[in-house]
Amino acid sequence: MARLIQCVPNFSEGINKDIVEEIVEEISKVDGVKLLDYSIDRDHNRSVVTFVGEPEAVVEAAFNCTRKAAELIDMSVHKGGHPRMGATDVIPLVPISEVTMEECIELSKVLGRRIGDELGIPVYLYEESASVQERKNLANIRKGEYEGFFEKMKNKEWLPDFGPSTMNKKSGVTAVGARNFLVAFNVELDTNDMGIANAISRKVRHINGGLRYVKAMGVFLEEKNRVQISMNMVNYEKTSLYTVLELIKIEAKRYGVNVVGSEVVGLVPMQALLECAVYYLQLNGFDMDQVLERRIYE
Amino acid sequence: MARLIQCVPNFSEGINKDIVEEIVEEISKVDGVKLLDYSIDRDHNRSVVTFVGEPEAVVEAAFNCTRKAAELIDMSVHKGGHPRMGATDVIPLVPISEVTMEECIELSKVLGRRIGDELGIPVYLYEESASVQERKNLANIRKGEYEGFFEKMKNKEWLPDFGPSTMNKKSGVTAVGARNFLVAFNVELDTNDMGIANAISRKVRHINGGLRYVKAMGVFLEEKNRVQISMNMVNYEKTSLYTVLELIKIEAKRYGVNVVGSEVVGLVPMQALLECAVYYLQLNGFDMDQVLERRIYE
Repeated sequence: MARLIQCVPNFSEGINKDIVEEIVEEISKVDGVKLLDYSIDRDHNRSVVTFVGEPEAVVEAAFNCTRKAAELIDMSVHKGGHPRMGATDVIPLVPISEVTMEECIELSKVLGRRIGDELGIPVYLYEESASVQERKNLANIRKGEYEGFFEKMKNKEWLPDFGPSTMNKKSGVTAVGARNFLVAFNVELDTNDMGIANAISRKVRHINGGLRYVKAMGVFLEEKNRVQISMNMVNYEKTSLYTVLELIKIEAKRYGVNVVGSEVVGLVPMQALLECAVYYLQLNGFDMDQVLERRIYE
Repeated sequence: MARLIQCVPNFSEGINKDIVEEIVEEISKVDGVKLLDYSIDRDHNRSVVTFVGEPEAVVEAAFNCTRKAAELIDMSVHKGGHPRMGATDVIPLVPISEVTMEECIELSKVLGRRIGDELGIPVYLYEESASVQERKNLANIRKGEYEGFFEKMKNKEWLPDFGPSTMNKKSGVTAVGARNFLVAFNVELDTNDMGIANAISRKVRHINGGLRYVKAMGVFLEEKNRVQISMNMVNYEKTSLYTVLELIKIEAKRYGVNVVGSEVVGLVPMQALLECAVYYLQLNGFDMDQVLERRIYE
């Protein structure tokens, strides 16, 4: 397999499709990157683009689309339900193959510096790239949103990592950082009791004493009249999908509730699922290099 | 993903490594094929080579290595424990991606005809390519082995599909055919009772009323003092690994016996394991295109 990282920039435009497509074009025209997907959310007036490629090409594409977004999006007139602080709101870099987290952190700094210096946009490093603990969590950085940043940046604690120390009125501010691949994993229960969903969520998620790399919340599924444990698996290598599923089953049991199904939303690395197969099949001594496709495309 | 087939030729040489390497070189020097593996079995005086590639390139490489084996191996002096009938004993062609079984059958005929016509080696089409029911099973074709073929070929029923109608003394005969990917899947039990292993094998394998695409036999593991159900999954898409594992567990239960582990020997297509993950995680509506690597290398 080649050296690959994934990049999932979020842009504050979900109504004008032409603008989104112009931004996306900046990505797909860079040699060595491959556009995997993009979704335009009208309600949130926001778009999410997913692409992969060689590290240097990804940084180039990420910079180019940020420049285009700065040109085409005016944050001073932006409205939308999703919390946001910049035209290019956040740029996560995710190691996929043959690239370490450390290299992704370095790349995020290279990218952040260019955005700051060349585009005059204040940049905050977040997650694995964060310079201080308070900046690890994106929600923490984004607090106050675009409108609040004019004041927030006056506080010395919120000086950006790169770029000007005052707000960019048109483009806002951008968060850049390396993080692990997120797997969106939801487990559905045969009950409509949100109290049970919330209780189970608390038992399995990290923040309340559960598994270290699980974020979870109860969600009510209107159409099915059932509840779901909606999760972000933030490090599927260290906390496996099967682990949280089995833990949910154990918790559900005390309410006489069963798992009726699960779903993975969006993309998932092969390994996250293979580890589940290995666990349930009780496969001993299995080596991921036994997977035919890995051998073919290595 | 590209159009890919896999080829796993077996050669009747496992002692002289130089000969095996010369044969393997004929494969790896063909553009558009990728050598994945080869194993040299001294005890059986036999080698197995695994390679993949574009269909036409695979046929070319398969022909070239058969020619080289005809040049370097003399069957009239060959000895070895494994049943064999030719210098190139058998050439299976396996559809991997974007190629149908029907195309593989056609390719096996193209390859068989060339080996017959250009190398003067009698060729039998087997498995999916077989012209008659009796030739589907390789063991059936191979019965009598090299030594017995001088007589066997006098029988009209055993006229070859391609090539001369009399034995090739130096090279013997070769079986060529399209077949599904074989997954070697073994399940270990916490007993040393071969009676139990054999009874379970009979329950799960096709020939005695079990699952259609499972071949199974009990094997005693000397070192561990335990038994194993040793299986060939001959169509993992139609009979899944998890199905046979669960069936083994059900049968083992009546003896108070448990599964202590399983193993996959050699290569396994990603999908064979992903289907197990999908089953055990109860993943609903999962699409194989959600697998990141498929999207990257498609």
